[in-house]
Amino acid sequence: MRHLLNPLDFSLEETGQLLDLAKDIEDNLPEYSHVCNGKKLATLFYEPSTRTRLSFEAAMLNLGGSVLGFSSADSSSASKGESVADTIRVISCYADICAMRHPKEGAPLVAANYSGIPVINAGDGGHQHPTQTLTDLLSIRSLKGRLNDLTIGLCGDLKFGRTVHSLINALVRYENIKFILISPPELRVPEYIREDVLRANNIEFIEMDSLDDAMPDLDILYMTRVQKERFFNEEDYIRLKDCYILDKKKMKLAKEDMYVLHPLPRVNEISVEVDDDKRAAYFKQAQYGVYVRMALIMTLLEVNKPC
Amino acid sequence: MRHLLNPLDFSLEETGQLLDLAKDIEDNLPEYSHVCNGKKLATLFYEPSTRTRLSFEAAMLNLGGSVLGFSSADSSSASKGESVADTIRVISCYADICAMRHPKEGAPLVAANYSGIPVINAGDGGHQHPTQTLTDLLSIRSLKGRLNDLTIGLCGDLKFGRTVHSLINALVRYENIKFILISPPELRVPEYIREDVLRANNIEFIEMDSLDDAMPDLDILYMTRVQKERFFNEEDYIRLKDCYILDKKKMKLAKEDMYVLHPLPRVNEISVEVDDDKRAAYFKQAQYGVYVRMALIMTLLEVNKPC
Amino acid sequence: MRHLLNPLDFSLEETGQLLDLAKDIEDNLPEYSHVCNGKKLATLFYEPSTRTRLSFEAAMLNLGGSVLGFSSADSSSASKGESVADTIRVISCYADICAMRHPKEGAPLVAANYSGIPVINAGDGGHQHPTQTLTDLLSIRSLKGRLNDLTIGLCGDLKFGRTVHSLINALVRYENIKFILISPPELRVPEYIREDVLRANNIEFIEMDSLDDAMPDLDILYMTRVQKERFFNEEDYIRLKDCYILDKKKMKLAKEDMYVLHPLPRVNEISVEVDDDKRAAYFKQAQYGVYVRMALIMTLLEVNKPC
Repeated sequence: MRHLLNPLDFSLEETGQLLDLAKDIEDNLPEYSHVCNGKKLATLFYEPSTRTRLSFEAAMLNLGGSVLGFSSADSSSASKGESVADTIRVISCYADICAMRHPKEGAPLVAANYSGIPVINAGDGGHQHPTQTLTDLLSIRSLKGRLNDLTIGLCGDLKFGRTVHSLINALVRYENIKFILISPPELRVPEYIREDVLRANNIEFIEMDSLDDAMPDLDILYMTRVQKERFFNEEDYIRLKDCYILDKKKMKLAKEDMYVLHPLPRVNEISVEVDDDKRAAYFKQAQYGVYVRMALIMTLLEVNKPC
Repeated sequence: MRHLLNPLDFSLEETGQLLDLAKDIEDNLPEYSHVCNGKKLATLFYEPSTRTRLSFEAAMLNLGGSVLGFSSADSSSASKGESVADTIRVISCYADICAMRHPKEGAPLVAANYSGIPVINAGDGGHQHPTQTLTDLLSIRSLKGRLNDLTIGLCGDLKFGRTVHSLINALVRYENIKFILISPPELRVPEYIREDVLRANNIEFIEMDSLDDAMPDLDILYMTRVQKERFFNEEDYIRLKDCYILDKKKMKLAKEDMYVLHPLPRVNEISVEVDDDKRAAYFKQAQYGVYVRMALIMTLLEVNKPC
Repeated sequence: MRHLLNPLDFSLEETGQLLDLAKDIEDNLPEYSHVCNGKKLATLFYEPSTRTRLSFEAAMLNLGGSVLGFSSADSSSASKGESVADTIRVISCYADICAMRHPKEGAPLVAANYSGIPVINAGDGGHQHPTQTLTDLLSIRSLKGRLNDLTIGLCGDLKFGRTVHSLINALVRYENIKFILISPPELRVPEYIREDVLRANNIEFIEMDSLDDAMPDLDILYMTRVQKERFFNEEDYIRLKDCYILDKKKMKLAKEDMYVLHPLPRVNEISVEVDDDKRAAYFKQAQYGVYVRMALIMTLLEVNKPC
């Protein structure tokens, strides 16, 4: 039985197959509407995350399955002191597959060790959120037609953002990927990413602090939020924050076939005036998130497309 | 694409078609049990309202569709500062239609402007609650067989009750409607209802403060709650409240074919001894609420009855 | 119309038929996957209980039905002061059957009096939890092949545990049942159980305070939690608690075909080292809980297995 706990649990080949399936789902959605009839997904959300939860639920409903679960720890038995190991053994009697969000790092791994059903990590603390990474990969591949030969700009808080770290880890497995890492000096990628991931894999990368300068070279711009509380002082924050807000003026510097992604929710790091630009793909990305989760559920349940 | 944001969004003719469909649903329920197979309703309830939410969910399930969503803002992404405009664009990737309840007036209108799917206003602050009005219209038409030639009594808090204002606005479009407006002087309908709605449409109406006096003339009695906190002083409240509690004694003054409606929940403004009276229609009204929401979902999704 | 409010609402014969149906469901699960198509279960949980709620929802989904409801009073209309009687009359318009959990004893009984649909008591305060008792009966019968001729050990807090009291009440209806009641002196079964249930039915029972001593004779060991706050003083608690923790060493004293049950959630009263013992049946018990609830829903809805 397979689980999905980390973004790299699937090999490059397996990831390719998953993305192929997601693509076929996008192209032939009605053909998949009954493949999970009679199957049940449990959404075990020990902390709220509407977007992620509803994306999983939409995915399972699209496949003809059904859904049960809880959306916050308050309404769960966790408050009665039950261990994750015990909970998952009970849930294994109720559902065929589960998606777990938990504030503690490693909780989904513990669950997987005791589970009778496939466990999908839907985010564990600041640790991993593998279906976001798969969503990002599918988005890039669908928008650009490839996962090789790309210049990827990552912009914002590159120090604490787990989404960005996971995406870098996932993309270094493809050929001829070049990163432009755009952030204030305080929020650069951690040393281990630079050394153990980028340099160790001979990946070309540039660190810069001007989004304007980076724009012309990018095939993909992946935006993330710069949170005020990450800065050492208010002064720096005020000085720097506008440099990392994407607006129409900055978009003019970009290629015609560059696409903007964002894991959402955004606050103000992408100006709403960009939303109507045909290169703004962050809402489309939410749609890819449903397709990739459909593919993932099918893969873990070993369900095939009907002939 | 159509939305339902205000009770008068549908013309008189469209409302008539909707009520006809609801009537046919009531009479031939099983024939509708698969018309929304594969369709998904998102219930986006930024404030709790079990009755309204479950009525929508029952409606969608009765049509063969499925449901996802959230039942309070706590478990949504709203707490992360996401705008309604962004949320609805993401939800548009997850569902085919949505019902939104929001504490802020106008939030469903904002959502509709950015939505890729039909938006139903399920109540926005003290503003509008159009499916309650449609429920009231269907209830009256089903119970009395018509929406013309009726004397409608509205009783209770007519000053602040949005339900009552919406119902008046909806009923003035029909012929030969007469209103008897029964309330304490402090809680009469606002001036704009009297002038811009009733007098402007040449609608006959009487304002009185005695429910007893009104009873004999009524075809429909629409009860609402008189909240203690609406009164200027405790003395007035104690003096007046009993006059607006419907009981068996008052029911004896009414016609044999007069029906009592109430948007629910009631607290004590209708004595439980009235519940067994065959003219007490406020629980049946909840059933009409499901039928009219079924008709509404079908109409907005442009789904037809199978031949 | 039937409801299930108390564990003994069903006669011995009816209980037998229910358990027979549950057994057939276990053996032929796929044959039941559409018997409740188009039916809706309302889960009305005025206090959270994830395990019980999800067990009901899994049961209904397994039967091809669908589910709506709420998982805590916060997100219900209860906060608006609506009575249970009014709520159930509205819910009767939305669903075909309901499971109600309520902090107040007797609330499901009140609901049943006004309901248009079957009501299942899913736990009312410290009072009754009849589907737990049915789960326990099915577990014992499935594991041991019979409900007669058994020596049942009940261990832990026998004074306050409603689960234990209900199970005793249910088991005294079978033949040749012998109880071994294992608890600290402070937490023995109440006098009325001893007199009005056990002695009045000529049931053989022994009270002892050593789990070790009891082990060799047992066919079933039903464990419950010993809560620290139940003890008169810390000293007694420390002295006694270890005697009531089931571990590998104690399991060695038991028969090869003795089975351990527990209503869950457990905290530490069963050591995790016991989980791998083939006689540890407390997680399998959760599975039986789904089967018995499927049988119960079918019975109350008067739905039959397809020929």
